Amino acid sequence: MSLDLATIRAAHARIRPHIKRTSVLTNGALDAALGAQLYLKCENLQAAGAFKSRGACNAVFSLTEAEAAHGVVTHSSGNHAAALARAARLRGIAAHIVMPQGSPQAKIRNVESFGGRITFCEPGLSAREAACAEIAARTGAMLVHPFDDYRVMAGQGTAALELLEDVSGLDIILCPVGGGGLLCGTAVAAKSLQPGIRVIGVEPALADDVAQSFRAGTRVSISTPATIADGLRTNSTGEKNLPLIRQYVDDIVTVSEAGIVAAMRELWDQLHLIVEPSAAVPYAALQENKFTFAGKNIGLILSGGNVDLEKLPWLKP
Amino acid sequence: MSLDLATIRAAHARIRPHIKRTSVLTNGALDAALGAQLYLKCENLQAAGAFKSRGACNAVFSLTEAEAAHGVVTHSSGNHAAALARAARLRGIAAHIVMPQGSPQAKIRNVESFGGRITFCEPGLSAREAACAEIAARTGAMLVHPFDDYRVMAGQGTAALELLEDVSGLDIILCPVGGGGLLCGTAVAAKSLQPGIRVIGVEPALADDVAQSFRAGTRVSISTPATIADGLRTNSTGEKNLPLIRQYVDDIVTVSEAGIVAAMRELWDQLHLIVEPSAAVPYAALQENKFTFAGKNIGLILSGGNVDLEKLPWLKP
Repeated sequence: MSLDLATIRAAHARIRPHIKRTSVLTNGALDAALGAQLYLKCENLQAAGAFKSRGACNAVFSLTEAEAAHGVVTHSSGNHAAALARAARLRGIAAHIVMPQGSPQAKIRNVESFGGRITFCEPGLSAREAACAEIAARTGAMLVHPFDDYRVMAGQGTAALELLEDVSGLDIILCPVGGGGLLCGTAVAAKSLQPGIRVIGVEPALADDVAQSFRAGTRVSISTPATIADGLRTNSTGEKNLPLIRQYVDDIVTVSEAGIVAAMRELWDQLHLIVEPSAAVPYAALQENKFTFAGKNIGLILSGGNVDLEKLPWLKP
Repeated sequence: MSLDLATIRAAHARIRPHIKRTSVLTNGALDAALGAQLYLKCENLQAAGAFKSRGACNAVFSLTEAEAAHGVVTHSSGNHAAALARAARLRGIAAHIVMPQGSPQAKIRNVESFGGRITFCEPGLSAREAACAEIAARTGAMLVHPFDDYRVMAGQGTAALELLEDVSGLDIILCPVGGGGLLCGTAVAAKSLQPGIRVIGVEPALADDVAQSFRAGTRVSISTPATIADGLRTNSTGEKNLPLIRQYVDDIVTVSEAGIVAAMRELWDQLHLIVEPSAAVPYAALQENKFTFAGKNIGLILSGGNVDLEKLPWLKP
């Protein structure tokens, strides 16, 4: 199995009863400021507040009865966790969730609200993976990796599928990059449907492991990134992700922390949407002029909206 | 001139280039909690952040060249002001705005961002009207009243027109009531298109002048209400509004201040939308079970999203 348009279409058919077809918004003020036409795919309004519901539902509803019997397990900074807990509840199976200490309260509450069984661990991939492996061995739960999994990538690609159905004539699609699940799904969907489109991933400069890996041609690991974009604090992209990224993605650009905060604020001021820092990362690339886009039609995936309002970074504490 | 489906349709054709066709969102968690199907018309995502852009554009683009020559003037708690400033800028004329002292910073910035010329006045209708009359006499600007104006009501009614085009089988439409402009437009549009639909206005109990007037059959004035719903702090409905409300609206119900805050919070927690207190008022009526709606399809107009995030009422200061 790999990832192609057929598996993304199959994922869409499989998950359609369980997810929302999210709105695509436009905004004249943003367009005027950028000198381009922006189409925002509002996955911040997706079930459980992020695109992660797509991949999690596809993985959970792809399991055979025997595979599903002992539930699922994953590690996640939060949105994949909530999405997997929700998908498992929809299927009536258990979800074991390994989360790093210090995850935002909004994300913890989110997991709990869907009945996920949380185990906290130290930050960093090795601690997460060890905790996951222990739970899988003890319970028989199936691992649903947050990004290094073709079923998950196929689910994430359905957001771009919908966006390209709803908006014709897109020149560029932008999405944030953490582990690369959304980017792989988006790139394979977009390039398969419209080979001339450009697909650009955007990473915080503080978490630029995928940008480095993309250029090096081999997976580069970094220490746990301190970026405000808590959804993108991955150490490394996945084994299955990097070849797809190298094949289908045109470029990976990086943005500053101040740019991420400014982008969040601008999206609130102009669009009246609160998005989480990770979701503001692609817009920051436009504000920071990280590539040429004048006059283009740009699709942008607003990846999630799970944020603690008490901690909005541009407000005084 | 009065208000009917034809004038609302004409308004829609007139303003379409200048406003957004806003999304209608649904949410399974809210539906499950209420035992009903909710369809949320997102005027919080409208141009200038509120449905007021509809009425203001219809009024401004209805003016003859001679009428428009000296600009427009109004008094408003903020959203009509911003919308009128925006509409005037789109037409290339001046907008004089009388605002009560203490209006939220978000609303003041909004007016300024569209080039509105602000005059601050004391709270209360008589002070507002006096300031407006003085400006009109001095400049020749045309008054565009925030609600007691058929052109404005016709524009506001286009939100319900779109909602009924997008969602079939609605049983009930809910909207917040301040002066009654949105309610009149909504009720005339809805009852004309679908006579069996119920139209219910919702007011803060602290600002129940329209509920009182509806029952008394005559306009009741109250002193300036202290409700958190700053968009609904009207002393009295309009001369033109009350007869329409009595003819077309089924009921006016009222909600508590705590209910408004709880509704705002629930809309954020479940839907990831920040709406202003006025926009949460109808949802509060559902949470407080103010009328019978089990199993019904309910359209709800989320009227606006202009709120100071620093002052979200459920967060600690």
